Amino acid sequence: MDAIGLSHHLSPTAAARTPSPLKSLMKYMSVDGMISLAGGLPHPSLFPFVNIEAEVYSPGIYLPSNTSESDSELLRFRVHKNDRANGQVVDLASGLQYAPTAGLPWLLQYVREFVRTVYQPAYKNYNVLMNDGSTDGWSKVVHLLCEPGGYILLEECTFPSTQAMWVPMGCKGVPLEMDVDGIRADVLETTLREWDTTHPGAKRPHVLYVIPTGQNPTGCTMPITRKQEIYDICVKYDIVIVEDDPYYILQFDTYKLPTTGNGHAEPPPSFDETVFLDSFVKTFLSIDVQGRVIRLDTFSKTMAPGNRLGWFTCNPLFAERIIRATEVTTQTPSGWSQSIISELLHTWGPGLSGYLRWLSGLQSQYEIRRDWMCDAIAKEFDAEQEGDKVIVYGKGTRVKLLSFVPPRAGMFLWCKVHLGENKEYNNLKGVSEELETAFEQKLWQEIVDAKVLISPGRFYAAWEGKDRPRNTAERDTAHFRLAFSMTTKDNVDLAVHRLAGVLHRAWELS
Amino acid sequence: MDAIGLSHHLSPTAAARTPSPLKSLMKYMSVDGMISLAGGLPHPSLFPFVNIEAEVYSPGIYLPSNTSESDSELLRFRVHKNDRANGQVVDLASGLQYAPTAGLPWLLQYVREFVRTVYQPAYKNYNVLMNDGSTDGWSKVVHLLCEPGGYILLEECTFPSTQAMWVPMGCKGVPLEMDVDGIRADVLETTLREWDTTHPGAKRPHVLYVIPTGQNPTGCTMPITRKQEIYDICVKYDIVIVEDDPYYILQFDTYKLPTTGNGHAEPPPSFDETVFLDSFVKTFLSIDVQGRVIRLDTFSKTMAPGNRLGWFTCNPLFAERIIRATEVTTQTPSGWSQSIISELLHTWGPGLSGYLRWLSGLQSQYEIRRDWMCDAIAKEFDAEQEGDKVIVYGKGTRVKLLSFVPPRAGMFLWCKVHLGENKEYNNLKGVSEELETAFEQKLWQEIVDAKVLISPGRFYAAWEGKDRPRNTAERDTAHFRLAFSMTTKDNVDLAVHRLAGVLHRAWELS
Repeated sequence: MDAIGLSHHLSPTAAARTPSPLKSLMKYMSVDGMISLAGGLPHPSLFPFVNIEAEVYSPGIYLPSNTSESDSELLRFRVHKNDRANGQVVDLASGLQYAPTAGLPWLLQYVREFVRTVYQPAYKNYNVLMNDGSTDGWSKVVHLLCEPGGYILLEECTFPSTQAMWVPMGCKGVPLEMDVDGIRADVLETTLREWDTTHPGAKRPHVLYVIPTGQNPTGCTMPITRKQEIYDICVKYDIVIVEDDPYYILQFDTYKLPTTGNGHAEPPPSFDETVFLDSFVKTFLSIDVQGRVIRLDTFSKTMAPGNRLGWFTCNPLFAERIIRATEVTTQTPSGWSQSIISELLHTWGPGLSGYLRWLSGLQSQYEIRRDWMCDAIAKEFDAEQEGDKVIVYGKGTRVKLLSFVPPRAGMFLWCKVHLGENKEYNNLKGVSEELETAFEQKLWQEIVDAKVLISPGRFYAAWEGKDRPRNTAERDTAHFRLAFSMTTKDNVDLAVHRLAGVLHRAWELS
Repeated sequence: MDAIGLSHHLSPTAAARTPSPLKSLMKYMSVDGMISLAGGLPHPSLFPFVNIEAEVYSPGIYLPSNTSESDSELLRFRVHKNDRANGQVVDLASGLQYAPTAGLPWLLQYVREFVRTVYQPAYKNYNVLMNDGSTDGWSKVVHLLCEPGGYILLEECTFPSTQAMWVPMGCKGVPLEMDVDGIRADVLETTLREWDTTHPGAKRPHVLYVIPTGQNPTGCTMPITRKQEIYDICVKYDIVIVEDDPYYILQFDTYKLPTTGNGHAEPPPSFDETVFLDSFVKTFLSIDVQGRVIRLDTFSKTMAPGNRLGWFTCNPLFAERIIRATEVTTQTPSGWSQSIISELLHTWGPGLSGYLRWLSGLQSQYEIRRDWMCDAIAKEFDAEQEGDKVIVYGKGTRVKLLSFVPPRAGMFLWCKVHLGENKEYNNLKGVSEELETAFEQKLWQEIVDAKVLISPGRFYAAWEGKDRPRNTAERDTAHFRLAFSMTTKDNVDLAVHRLAGVLHRAWELS
């Protein structure tokens, strides 16, 4: 099945793009015997680079099952300028030249295979093309679909930097209430059904932006049942879904509170490719029979952010329009990034196998870090599991301070602070409309003074425009986002100890 | 002297940008003893790269004076992940992490020093920041300054890909007539003075886009006297000048027709840094006392296009707005590109010296290529120097076929075709309004059929909107752009031989 026609979703600028006339010369370049004086290309003999050699980890280095010595050995690959000796898949003469907008051919083929195997898109003629990472990807999607002043459907808590792309265009967010599975489908349906009544004169939004796995900031992961409900509503109301999924490859087992003080056992010790692939939550792409999903993937979390390398998966119409836009902006991702990632993936091969081993190892490393943080909280407070949630009481008390859902993906723990039993908060009640926000800031400052830097929940509120109060929070709660990706165990323990000190003092429990 | 206030030039979107709230946390990260759980950064121990080693040319390899063996030796450098052993200036743990938007500190400092030394900006508080190459740079400038539907001042012949950025926004070009020194100052003055009369109701343009050195496609280079005239008019009418100067570093000696059939002697054999620096034409930046010039530089022509690495030099207000836009689009150029270029420049040091040697060698290589092409034309036709121009007659005849100004910079020879003595052309005269264009296309097709690919002059016409005929050409002339950067001597000889065959036949001279 092919994608349906969706050209009515294009912004006027995106619809108006035309290829540069110089592109019309391309087809002649491959004519046998043709001498081209057409392109203003620097001669590759004048690139100063002869070759590079990289030393990299074995893909199995972080697998919990890594007991063989070979998993610990470093691998090497070399990228020559002019030949592809020893099975090189790129050369610097072409990799560092003006290159195809959609990406270097080998890498594009690899990524296409990854998409096919891991996501199994539900329609046939999807396209894959590289971008400069998901921030670049999202900015291109906004220019592709959004007009100044329009509305964008999004999670009620979302990543502020993606909002900072469209806020200056005068766009407004339509925040959708979330539960532990992400956006509530009934809320989406009601919002769209009642749009003309609630927003008289305003064009109904046609873009839904969602971070479905290990959401930023809430850490929640949307199961396929919820995705299917959302998708069906998007079909009904003709919505394009932008699936921004940087944490997809960082999925974990469910967290369980430790029964002893020594934290968790390591995750299971064997790697099986089929089991590994089956463990992933299914994506919007996997149910997208119409081609209305634009999926954003990135190598930032799996390889390094500095690669500035990611990719779109979308229908051919959107892909062609994005290529036109890319020609006049970024042109194509860095040839260094593309060449090095290509050779790394090739060295790790065959096929996807090496990369999948690497991802499995990476998951276990971030899962360990998630556990460090959850365990540290369990140690410094009294914690109880209650369904999906962990409820956190003051040490040795029944005073409810915090609650959170231990994330099954990503890098973030989203901590709800329960203010109801805080004396100072209760004394101030009625004084201010925005007391929760003010109190969140006050607590945040005390935590910073104790030398723990976290980010305040209000940073993540969906932007509804200047005149609209940004207060979708439940009464008597505040939020903090704690990232567990970058810290050592010792520092997590120390940070949570300091945090516990601040909270116990603020609730007069110490 | 500092830049004057130019905030009234910002587009509404550019003016409305705000920093992401997460940035407000940055200042706390450097507090002594602070444990940050704020940023969602992947841990660098989980980057798969341990180190890379590069083999590169010595900076002197292409110097005509290169006779010493050391100039031919390859150099090596290594970039480690976690330490900066042996004077490394970057490490992969930070170079491949989320990194400063403006660029890696060492590179930024180097580029700033290059700007100071080579361009000597005329005001004090200019900023330098990296971008993903000049295509990215120009797209950011368009979003910074231009509104949909507005007018942009530009050379009458210009690079079509830069137009493809703003054409879909409904913008229109205002083509300015050129002579051998580029845009005519009197034409600019008249255009602006008479704007309200010639364009009633339309806002006067406030942006001038110019490619001042080795212009694309005309190859012409604007001397400082002309730049000063243009600059003064831009001050008078409050115009921002965008100096897109990718070929600046490829400046040559003046071409002279060969007196024997053996072409040219090599350029002078000695390298002297002071002489070399003095040989460069002065830039708009060097006379920009007000900070109204945005200069675009790139490593694409000096190192390789695949680096996707260039930089802006502009006033601090524009720089800050560009940083805000970069945060939500490209974030920062590839860490690989920045790290590798940094270490290369450092290895070539000390200071700018190695890079300047490299640039001098590069100039001589492209100058040789320019000479190959001009010499081949002189050989296949009868050519005469007439002031700045070379006039080209049919071999053994006085039938004027072509004329061109041998470029003193860049990669392009812009060939005017004189149709006045072509019988077929004269027979068709009066049949079509656009006969020159049709005949250009006919000749182009015959040249392609002879297996030489060049680009037709009409590709480079300034875009004046759909309803405006794109015909600013002189009567009875057509144009072709011939790039001399990418071809071997043998192929240039063969291509010009084929071209001569087509033209002699078309003028019935063979």
